[in-house]
Amino acid sequence: MTTATKTRENNSFVLRGVKDVQFEERPVPKLTNPYDVLLQVNFTGICGSDVHYWQHGRIGHFVVNDPMVLGHESAGTVVEVGSHVKTLKKGDRVAMEPGVPCRRCVRCKEGKYNLCFDMAFAATPPYDGTLAKYYLLPEDFCYKLPDNMTLEEGALMEPLAVAVHITKQAGVKQGDTAVVFGAGPVGLLCCAVAHTLGAKKVIAVDINKERLEFAKSFAATASFEPAKVSAAENAQRLKDENDLGQGADVAIDASGAEPSVQTAIHVLRMGGRYVQGGMGRDEITFPIMAACTKELTVKGSFRYGSGDYQMAVDLASSGQVDVKKLITRKVSFENAEQAFEDVKAGKAIKVLIEGPR
Amino acid sequence: MTTATKTRENNSFVLRGVKDVQFEERPVPKLTNPYDVLLQVNFTGICGSDVHYWQHGRIGHFVVNDPMVLGHESAGTVVEVGSHVKTLKKGDRVAMEPGVPCRRCVRCKEGKYNLCFDMAFAATPPYDGTLAKYYLLPEDFCYKLPDNMTLEEGALMEPLAVAVHITKQAGVKQGDTAVVFGAGPVGLLCCAVAHTLGAKKVIAVDINKERLEFAKSFAATASFEPAKVSAAENAQRLKDENDLGQGADVAIDASGAEPSVQTAIHVLRMGGRYVQGGMGRDEITFPIMAACTKELTVKGSFRYGSGDYQMAVDLASSGQVDVKKLITRKVSFENAEQAFEDVKAGKAIKVLIEGPR
Amino acid sequence: MTTATKTRENNSFVLRGVKDVQFEERPVPKLTNPYDVLLQVNFTGICGSDVHYWQHGRIGHFVVNDPMVLGHESAGTVVEVGSHVKTLKKGDRVAMEPGVPCRRCVRCKEGKYNLCFDMAFAATPPYDGTLAKYYLLPEDFCYKLPDNMTLEEGALMEPLAVAVHITKQAGVKQGDTAVVFGAGPVGLLCCAVAHTLGAKKVIAVDINKERLEFAKSFAATASFEPAKVSAAENAQRLKDENDLGQGADVAIDASGAEPSVQTAIHVLRMGGRYVQGGMGRDEITFPIMAACTKELTVKGSFRYGSGDYQMAVDLASSGQVDVKKLITRKVSFENAEQAFEDVKAGKAIKVLIEGPR
Amino acid sequence: MTTATKTRENNSFVLRGVKDVQFEERPVPKLTNPYDVLLQVNFTGICGSDVHYWQHGRIGHFVVNDPMVLGHESAGTVVEVGSHVKTLKKGDRVAMEPGVPCRRCVRCKEGKYNLCFDMAFAATPPYDGTLAKYYLLPEDFCYKLPDNMTLEEGALMEPLAVAVHITKQAGVKQGDTAVVFGAGPVGLLCCAVAHTLGAKKVIAVDINKERLEFAKSFAATASFEPAKVSAAENAQRLKDENDLGQGADVAIDASGAEPSVQTAIHVLRMGGRYVQGGMGRDEITFPIMAACTKELTVKGSFRYGSGDYQMAVDLASSGQVDVKKLITRKVSFENAEQAFEDVKAGKAIKVLIEGPR
Repeated sequence: MTTATKTRENNSFVLRGVKDVQFEERPVPKLTNPYDVLLQVNFTGICGSDVHYWQHGRIGHFVVNDPMVLGHESAGTVVEVGSHVKTLKKGDRVAMEPGVPCRRCVRCKEGKYNLCFDMAFAATPPYDGTLAKYYLLPEDFCYKLPDNMTLEEGALMEPLAVAVHITKQAGVKQGDTAVVFGAGPVGLLCCAVAHTLGAKKVIAVDINKERLEFAKSFAATASFEPAKVSAAENAQRLKDENDLGQGADVAIDASGAEPSVQTAIHVLRMGGRYVQGGMGRDEITFPIMAACTKELTVKGSFRYGSGDYQMAVDLASSGQVDVKKLITRKVSFENAEQAFEDVKAGKAIKVLIEGPR
Repeated sequence: MTTATKTRENNSFVLRGVKDVQFEERPVPKLTNPYDVLLQVNFTGICGSDVHYWQHGRIGHFVVNDPMVLGHESAGTVVEVGSHVKTLKKGDRVAMEPGVPCRRCVRCKEGKYNLCFDMAFAATPPYDGTLAKYYLLPEDFCYKLPDNMTLEEGALMEPLAVAVHITKQAGVKQGDTAVVFGAGPVGLLCCAVAHTLGAKKVIAVDINKERLEFAKSFAATASFEPAKVSAAENAQRLKDENDLGQGADVAIDASGAEPSVQTAIHVLRMGGRYVQGGMGRDEITFPIMAACTKELTVKGSFRYGSGDYQMAVDLASSGQVDVKKLITRKVSFENAEQAFEDVKAGKAIKVLIEGPR
Repeated sequence: MTTATKTRENNSFVLRGVKDVQFEERPVPKLTNPYDVLLQVNFTGICGSDVHYWQHGRIGHFVVNDPMVLGHESAGTVVEVGSHVKTLKKGDRVAMEPGVPCRRCVRCKEGKYNLCFDMAFAATPPYDGTLAKYYLLPEDFCYKLPDNMTLEEGALMEPLAVAVHITKQAGVKQGDTAVVFGAGPVGLLCCAVAHTLGAKKVIAVDINKERLEFAKSFAATASFEPAKVSAAENAQRLKDENDLGQGADVAIDASGAEPSVQTAIHVLRMGGRYVQGGMGRDEITFPIMAACTKELTVKGSFRYGSGDYQMAVDLASSGQVDVKKLITRKVSFENAEQAFEDVKAGKAIKVLIEGPR
Repeated sequence: MTTATKTRENNSFVLRGVKDVQFEERPVPKLTNPYDVLLQVNFTGICGSDVHYWQHGRIGHFVVNDPMVLGHESAGTVVEVGSHVKTLKKGDRVAMEPGVPCRRCVRCKEGKYNLCFDMAFAATPPYDGTLAKYYLLPEDFCYKLPDNMTLEEGALMEPLAVAVHITKQAGVKQGDTAVVFGAGPVGLLCCAVAHTLGAKKVIAVDINKERLEFAKSFAATASFEPAKVSAAENAQRLKDENDLGQGADVAIDASGAEPSVQTAIHVLRMGGRYVQGGMGRDEITFPIMAACTKELTVKGSFRYGSGDYQMAVDLASSGQVDVKKLITRKVSFENAEQAFEDVKAGKAIKVLIEGPR
């Protein structure tokens, strides 16, 4: 019947080539795996990687060869559940973890599914993203939202899970001093997570004064604006101004900028920990001997893994991290491209796309 | 009495300035701390850092401003013990751990004494080294040599402890595949330690064919000679030739060379571990995005800490690591400078200085 | 065709009730999951838990309510592979890991699939075991045997994986002193694994002199026969006889006997580690204050998890653990019940059932 | 001069034998070690172990053979500093960590100084305690109180450090569910520390309703009063009432009571963690098979170690743990015995002794 079909059409926001997006009606995904649920997507945030695919058609060796639905920061509502699904039912509101691992490789079985080689990740070629009316996910990658959380907050669980993973990689613990480079959404959330993990000083670093002010109002205990001097000099001033003594326990880069990485390495104490969270140039000039003789631990952080999404939901629902403050504005699905323009122009911390209805 | 004084004179090999060494009679150190022992030094190995001080008068911010006794890889014999010493007696032969931490700072008390800011390390300005007839050490930094170990082997415990620390930092465990860059003494010993910790493949990398042959005869299961191609290409060939699949579990740099570091990062699998053991240029071009998206753990390694020296002695006395094979030749104390010349010229794996008698 | 059907009939050794076993022709399992392989079972070892089900019809709250095929220590040959199977082909010989987790719960995704609540484990009610001609397993629970390993050795990978897991739980590392209580198959294999992980002293404890002799010939560096005195007294004598100073670093119980557990706790040094591997009485008298004031770490060990089976295969194929020595005898499938009788009577270290052909 | 000498006399509260205490004028300790500071003791809390020595003259194998000053939970003011002291000066108010390790043994150097065999611990025979006018401590065992903390709070840092150590041993992390048995001072503080480490449910268990009410007002999110049924039944009801599903992540015993330990083991999920913090009978009936098949980690906790005291001060000064609420009353030094009577009678959570002036 026509009407029924209409209510189930699957309007999708598709990247067809560099800077070439359009809406398409695609088939509604079929619920064939008994452990899956079919979701109607309600809100989707836009991040730098979405914008990068839109502008360049690729990120590193991931190339968009075929039309691909964009979007991966979403919350939705359960429409239908598979026969083996136990914890979800129609109407439940969930945060959607958008990458499903193979569950069978060595990495998956050792508890590091974010390192799975056969990961199917939304809006990473060749996998379609979540900017569509309907999306299929396994039950265990849907996180039921508590009553005190909105679907808008649910869409923010993705960047919060990124920040949780970065901050866990950094091993932030009670009493630590942490310096976070970059006060975009992920950097801001890293400040907040570091704070909830007990960091007693959380210093936000950015070249944008407005962002630094926001960082202090959000979760940072102090801020630092680097000068046009060497990384070592900026690091020294950062230590001096913040009474960091022999250096910070933890430094996190959420900027991807070379000077940030360098300053971060110099700001750390003997035995300090560094995490590369931000994406930037493939290769940079790196103070390797400082890392060696201070016996630093330098880690990458890639997406999110075991427990990260659940911790994000816990932090938001308990009020420890107020993600609502990061939502600058919402646009309708029909105006999705505007959201991309806004993020590209740096006009917003986080823009959400609502729908399609 | 003159004679008695003579038998206790303390002949020392002193660096007075760049390339300016001479023998000096210095006072015999006095045993004032009841936990200390006075040792007669029997054998001392020479390493790259000794040569660097000799040639340049400095390493990084450590500058030789005053005359300084060289040497820090020594074994000796107990001459006198303090009143609180319980486990050593006159005549005991010991490997000498040449850096004594403050025991009171946060780093010391958390079990990372190698990161102590007040470390007094032999032959690191302003602390005199071990190339003298007598040397004072706390009892707990002397490791009694089992009967089946010679004093020559005892002097090799220092580079072996360096390798133990590097390999522990790398978290090498049963079944791992490990690639070690640089087949000098420390690299060779890292191969051996990785093997004893259960690595099933240990691949030595060097640009010197002779060293690679030695590495295979010593502890490596395979070797690799890089070509004059990009780091990524060398890494790919290394993986292909050694059936490393998605990459090695562990990579260790014991060369300090930029291309080694780069190749090491590219040779690792998702979630792999890298340790910077070799000293080189302060800053290098580093493939930071590979480290980020593969979620690598990159660690520095600085000297040796809790348990490392004891493990070195255990590995040598049990026959798991045959350090004797690394001793190229021995010279008398009177010819100490020749040992420095030989190491500088790359004429030897390890040269030992005997005495002074 | 009749003949074809016959060659595919699935002869099974079934427990119908307490001490009531019989052979049944069951349907050959169908390969419906594309990630599965169908195996012909070649050899199956018998262990204490098999005997316990046979004698009592239950272990704890696991009750045999319906007829159940016995057996879970098997090696077999691939007969057919699913369409998504990549690493195995018909004719490959494999060690069979006999418990398949849900892959979806929190425990599975954090890397501890042995703690999965929905584990389907062979010969644990209601799941049938491997004492049948054919058995289905996912590809990733089959471990291809290297050419230098026999199928008989393959069947021993199960108890070796148990020992690997216990020894990993104990955190045995280079230079440790380890005491292993119980010199049955698992205790013997714990001695061997502790040795390969670098334990410098491995002391086997048992009340059976013959077993202690075997233990020393197999992997223990020393043995201890407890006297009929208190646990504290036995512990003191064990320490004295083996120069353990303030106590052992590690103690493992593979006996399940109360006096062993007590002695183990008393034999440990401050900060020592204990693992309960053996099964015994639900509750025992336990020296809790010794565990508290020595700040011990006491762990249970349950089956095997991520990496354990692969490590077992690696240890056997590299010659580090010679499991062949544990095989006392082999019986044909038709005489399967005899194997159970022998193990019950303590007449063998390990009995293998061959077939059915 | 007489007057001067008088102001420096060292009034001490001495245990001479079972239930035999008296005040003694003892010599003021001399500041001979240049790393030490001389403190005037301002406040001292009394705990169960103090009372136990007073009542029984011993705890385990620690026997009071000679007169011994009691007390070990103190805060004081710096009177004099040694020549090498850098961070403290006369007049500084400090929390006093009352156990000084040897700094030289394997345990000390691996970062576990609380396990030092040569620990000199206040009011543990043969070492005098802190219930005196003056007390000597190394600089690094004195923790300067921030301006926003009182000396009374400083005296509470000792039990808070005990709770910090227990809770760290339990590995409490963000999102955990934790059950704490015993709502005395240490149990209450464990609740608070677990909460600051992110536990989302913290359930206090006690047989005293009043204490449970206090626990909820202090730091617990729920409470549980065990019934006179089996440990397994109490555990089941505790899980049911608190929606713990398959069990709690963490259980801590701060009671020392056998039924608490048993209930704790049964309340845990597969892979849960248990810490024995409370002191009680040497041996108890322990559900060892539950610990084994659930693969629990059971740890003792002994005093406090690296970083614990500093974390206690941080938690108190940041307002995360309000220790003031635990102070039931203060008595003057002259009435010290009354404090012991009160604690023995269970009339107080924490009693502080002030002075001597």
